[in-house]
Amino acid sequence: MVDTIRGIYERYGFEPLETPAVEYVEVLGKFLPESQTPEGGVFAWRDEDKDWIALRYDLTAPLSRVVAEHKDSLPMPFRRYQVGPVWRLEKPGPGRFREFQQFDIDTVGSASMAADAEVCCALADSLEALGIARGQYLVKVNNRKVLNGVLERMGLGDAAAAAAPGTPTGAAGGAAPADFPRLPAEPGKRPDAAAFLQLANYHRANPAAQRMAVLRAIDKLDRLGLDGVRDMLGDGRLDPSGAFNYGAGLRPDQWEGVFGFLRAGAADRGAVVARLRELVATSKVGIEGVDELAEMDRLLSAAGYANDRVVFDPSVVRGLEYYTGPVFEAALTFEIVDEDGAKRQFGSVAGGGRYDTLVERFTGQLVPATGVSIGVDRLLAALKAVGRGASQRSGPVVVVTMDKDRWVEYQQMTAELRAAGIRAEMFLGKGGLGAQLKYADKRNSPLAVIAGGNEFAKNEVSIKDLRLGKQLSDKITDRDEWRKAQPAQVTVARAALIDEVRKRLATA
Amino acid sequence: MVDTIRGIYERYGFEPLETPAVEYVEVLGKFLPESQTPEGGVFAWRDEDKDWIALRYDLTAPLSRVVAEHKDSLPMPFRRYQVGPVWRLEKPGPGRFREFQQFDIDTVGSASMAADAEVCCALADSLEALGIARGQYLVKVNNRKVLNGVLERMGLGDAAAAAAPGTPTGAAGGAAPADFPRLPAEPGKRPDAAAFLQLANYHRANPAAQRMAVLRAIDKLDRLGLDGVRDMLGDGRLDPSGAFNYGAGLRPDQWEGVFGFLRAGAADRGAVVARLRELVATSKVGIEGVDELAEMDRLLSAAGYANDRVVFDPSVVRGLEYYTGPVFEAALTFEIVDEDGAKRQFGSVAGGGRYDTLVERFTGQLVPATGVSIGVDRLLAALKAVGRGASQRSGPVVVVTMDKDRWVEYQQMTAELRAAGIRAEMFLGKGGLGAQLKYADKRNSPLAVIAGGNEFAKNEVSIKDLRLGKQLSDKITDRDEWRKAQPAQVTVARAALIDEVRKRLATA
Repeated sequence: MVDTIRGIYERYGFEPLETPAVEYVEVLGKFLPESQTPEGGVFAWRDEDKDWIALRYDLTAPLSRVVAEHKDSLPMPFRRYQVGPVWRLEKPGPGRFREFQQFDIDTVGSASMAADAEVCCALADSLEALGIARGQYLVKVNNRKVLNGVLERMGLGDAAAAAAPGTPTGAAGGAAPADFPRLPAEPGKRPDAAAFLQLANYHRANPAAQRMAVLRAIDKLDRLGLDGVRDMLGDGRLDPSGAFNYGAGLRPDQWEGVFGFLRAGAADRGAVVARLRELVATSKVGIEGVDELAEMDRLLSAAGYANDRVVFDPSVVRGLEYYTGPVFEAALTFEIVDEDGAKRQFGSVAGGGRYDTLVERFTGQLVPATGVSIGVDRLLAALKAVGRGASQRSGPVVVVTMDKDRWVEYQQMTAELRAAGIRAEMFLGKGGLGAQLKYADKRNSPLAVIAGGNEFAKNEVSIKDLRLGKQLSDKITDRDEWRKAQPAQVTVARAALIDEVRKRLATA
Repeated sequence: MVDTIRGIYERYGFEPLETPAVEYVEVLGKFLPESQTPEGGVFAWRDEDKDWIALRYDLTAPLSRVVAEHKDSLPMPFRRYQVGPVWRLEKPGPGRFREFQQFDIDTVGSASMAADAEVCCALADSLEALGIARGQYLVKVNNRKVLNGVLERMGLGDAAAAAAPGTPTGAAGGAAPADFPRLPAEPGKRPDAAAFLQLANYHRANPAAQRMAVLRAIDKLDRLGLDGVRDMLGDGRLDPSGAFNYGAGLRPDQWEGVFGFLRAGAADRGAVVARLRELVATSKVGIEGVDELAEMDRLLSAAGYANDRVVFDPSVVRGLEYYTGPVFEAALTFEIVDEDGAKRQFGSVAGGGRYDTLVERFTGQLVPATGVSIGVDRLLAALKAVGRGASQRSGPVVVVTMDKDRWVEYQQMTAELRAAGIRAEMFLGKGGLGAQLKYADKRNSPLAVIAGGNEFAKNEVSIKDLRLGKQLSDKITDRDEWRKAQPAQVTVARAALIDEVRKRLATA
């Protein structure tokens, strides 16, 4: 799977770059949702100089550091890909690991929407190269500036300032900022009016926190549905667990505005752009965002990526806080049965966006950048769900080692097969023919090479076709006919070993 | 480089297996040299339950944990390969990093010397596949049991017990065990007789520590030469820095024995085996080791790997403590000029050995295993030293973006090239033709696709061959002839873009 994706990324001109797994905490920044302490959300410890160091939580923040450090020696724009583990200190769960693999592409040093459009094309190409058919996936695109424009229109503070370079908004984006008021939370009960007044006062003083609360509410659309999102945009929501989750505190006329934004998604990119242009009206940042989407639409269409592959979807917000413009998500649209036995769409397997201010933190110089990250583990699970896992891969030819005194001869056969470019191994464990064939089966080996006393006496070797049994069970009507044409086991002259194995492998 | 090695390992029947980067400290064990505390030598910290966790220092210890945990579902013997980062908390220096990449193969569940022989063959094949010619490298093999036998013969404790399953010898192998006596160390001076008496008493009480001191002395043969090793086997050595390094405290007749062992290396594996057999005489563990070497010799010869590829070299001991039998090392034998301007052999790029007791720590059940680890960063440096680095790799075709209003057309050309399977990108940064061609040059691009007003007006496109300048400088005698045959730039119909690019790429 990784090789296939790498092939596509290479074709797009991306180059491999490895960055270290360990960084100073300052390098990683405070961009993780749910992180409330300097080291929150990441695996962090103090080094021998008492500085905080941590395992990277994504491949983007470390890339920004590397680019800032080596900008003069890198070709600019710099296109890189990287696949590797990242770590997050959060409660593990089904499909949620503390260590997982990401496969990223990034273009650093280009402000052009062509870079963003290209990322979407590369994502679509990768999924199709892996055998996920058109119609089974969608690359969804939104733009943070558009949402900021919509919020600005509702009077939720100066959204442009919040996204402005050099002013990261800190813990916003997390479940609750550090100065969030201690609001009453009695299990199973809605709080009283005084609590909501307190929240409203807090939001008046902290418009950025309120905007991030809106983002978080939208981000839960998949899980809570429209009604749930409406609650979270307003006062809040009594969770089935009995906990009351405070909302973003919008007035009904305000969340209607957000709903209008969410409903702007449509089958046609041009129509979405037109609808969003109405919604942002005179907001400067909003218009900028809509223009960017329009430019991406032009470039995507020119490259032949129509609405059946890349759509504009205002409900895509992405959790990470460092995005400044376009955000992307690749979602698999086919249904699977989840852990609770319910049918649902497989959902997101990749996400990303433009992060124009990340490199700037190090150099003070604006270096625009954009990229996307494939969740390797999730995508692998998805491929397995559609029967395209790697487990079907053919194993090596297994040279059975029945006779302890003949290991030198077995070794010779194995070496010959390998020298001929054939994937092969001799069985190195204990056990007779049955155990060894069982092993070969577990390895999904196509053929077993067998030589015992009889064969050695006549200078011959037997070759057993292990796929035959499996093929026979695949509803072949005339078994005898098949067997005659492809006998499960043949004995040939020792000198003909390589030719015979080659011939049989070719008939796979 | 990694892909080439992977190809060889796959041909040998090894399968990929990823293990986590973070493990409990107990899993990693205390097998690192120079480690004197529970977390010594590794990056370690306490998790939220106050347990010590750490970054893996190699790929072997985590594999042992995984095998112990999943033994029933894995095919046995289990052959795996893995490439990934490991971390060591030590002073960084030239060529010595705190994070570096290893590429491992392991066969778990086989006690057969065929598994060890195979590891050596795979190493040799990998180096040759990377273009390191026969004669430029050697796979060197030794056996810990033989050395233990030699030491046993000298009366250095019961060596067999020290290597017995379930009794890891703790900090031994490190610079100094925790209970090592505080011996006087005045700069520039040899200690007095009282100090050596104290050391001798310590060694009498701690034969395992003395044996490991012998191993460490031998391990320094490359750096100190025979005289230095003799000093370190005896009382010790006054370092050029002025520090006195205490030795293993052997008597002259004893270090003569060790020297005999070291000198047993010869051009012929059979001769080494014969000589070692004399040296171990009646030592049971020693005879076992010699028998293992003899068996490896038989298998290696059968597979066609003669003394020009795999040699037996008693000076190879390998620093890690968990090895129980055969140990291997791949050394590059060509000379390079080091940081100090001195000529020296490039040296070791891979090492490994048999570790029959590692899995047992978890299950109590003996699971024999062997493997080897390629130092990816070191090998890459070696390839660069012989002019076989990856930097010569051809870059993508670059579509020059000169006209801001034509980006949609450039995007189309790029998409067409990619759809035709050609590695291509459009330039996404700022700058005119000159800057863009300079970028293409930095990317080592073979061709640039150029379309400006003229070309668009006539529905044409220009293709510039960027390799031509480089080729011309490579001493081509008749420049005009060459230019006529391969003009540096041609202009063709827009519809002929793909065909022309294909044709030109084929003439590389």
